[in-house]
Amino acid sequence: MEGRPQSVERLVEELGRLPGIGRRTAERLADHLVRVPKEEAMALAVAIRDVKRAVLRCSSCGNFAEGDPCPLCGDPKRDRGLLCVVTAVKDLLVMERSGAYRGLYHVLEGRVAPLEGVGPEDIRLQDLVTRVRGGELREVILATDPDAEGDMTAHHVVEALEGCGVTVSRLSRGLPAGSSLEYASPATVGEALEGRRPAS
Amino acid sequence: MEGRPQSVERLVEELGRLPGIGRRTAERLADHLVRVPKEEAMALAVAIRDVKRAVLRCSSCGNFAEGDPCPLCGDPKRDRGLLCVVTAVKDLLVMERSGAYRGLYHVLEGRVAPLEGVGPEDIRLQDLVTRVRGGELREVILATDPDAEGDMTAHHVVEALEGCGVTVSRLSRGLPAGSSLEYASPATVGEALEGRRPAS
Repeated sequence: MEGRPQSVERLVEELGRLPGIGRRTAERLADHLVRVPKEEAMALAVAIRDVKRAVLRCSSCGNFAEGDPCPLCGDPKRDRGLLCVVTAVKDLLVMERSGAYRGLYHVLEGRVAPLEGVGPEDIRLQDLVTRVRGGELREVILATDPDAEGDMTAHHVVEALEGCGVTVSRLSRGLPAGSSLEYASPATVGEALEGRRPAS
Repeated sequence: MEGRPQSVERLVEELGRLPGIGRRTAERLADHLVRVPKEEAMALAVAIRDVKRAVLRCSSCGNFAEGDPCPLCGDPKRDRGLLCVVTAVKDLLVMERSGAYRGLYHVLEGRVAPLEGVGPEDIRLQDLVTRVRGGELREVILATDPDAEGDMTAHHVVEALEGCGVTVSRLSRGLPAGSSLEYASPATVGEALEGRRPAS
């Protein structure tokens, strides 16, 4: 019985290491790359190489960028008195896409999750404290997920920043914009009720 | 508003060209490749390059392999009197995985699909005729899909091979091994009934 050539098997293995890509999908992708013109497949290989050559973490905020500091930290038009704390770079991108925030960021690179053995010492919390102490910040905005681990992470940040003389706030919770009350979960409705604000 | 670095955007685009990979998945995969150690990401880039360097189509059967003829066509232990016709290399692999076939193959590289503008002249049908005429074959086994396009493709192969003095057979249809009759489609039951064979 013959299977795929050895180099294709290697490619299936490497593709299978990607998150969410199972054996079957990896096989389908590898077979596709075998079939397409050389230029098309090599464009992907080159794009991967270029990313690994060019992209590094910003030593200030932890964002991925092609320079250090990243364009965000280097932008003189951003409000240097505001710092938004996110657990991962993907959340930084979500904040940026909203277009509603013009301050700086701090990426914790993880969230406190005792069940997975991740404690406050395993994320970039001490870096945050150092940054807040040394800086000219007036407010730290916590943008952790609205779930148990996000709450726990936020709690540890609040604790760590006590006595730093900075306001610490957190993104509000409630009904998501554009949704229907009909489809909101009981927990969401509960939080929307608890967080109710004066109608204008 | 800042997004991903330029090189990461390029990688998202290239990943998004893969079949079944949408924008969101491409972003997730690119972000993963940004985060992982350089060696891990480069292993994927190198695997792609190696495939494009090493793999070519067998000029005889159309299989993908690192040599020409492919290991299947070059194997002296395969039965050279049997030729299995498949529409794609993935189907050749399915036949091989069954362990039930020990002959040679012919990959049509497509199937007749008039609605998509694919006619018999667009697949490797003439190559098949040439091969059958020049060879020492006693039987051609059609392993096209059990669907409308598979039927149509099989029909065109039968027509093209008329007068070549070779037996042309087709994989049988019926209940899939290990399945339950309860979950068989009416069409499958119909074909299983029509194709019934003496009980031993």
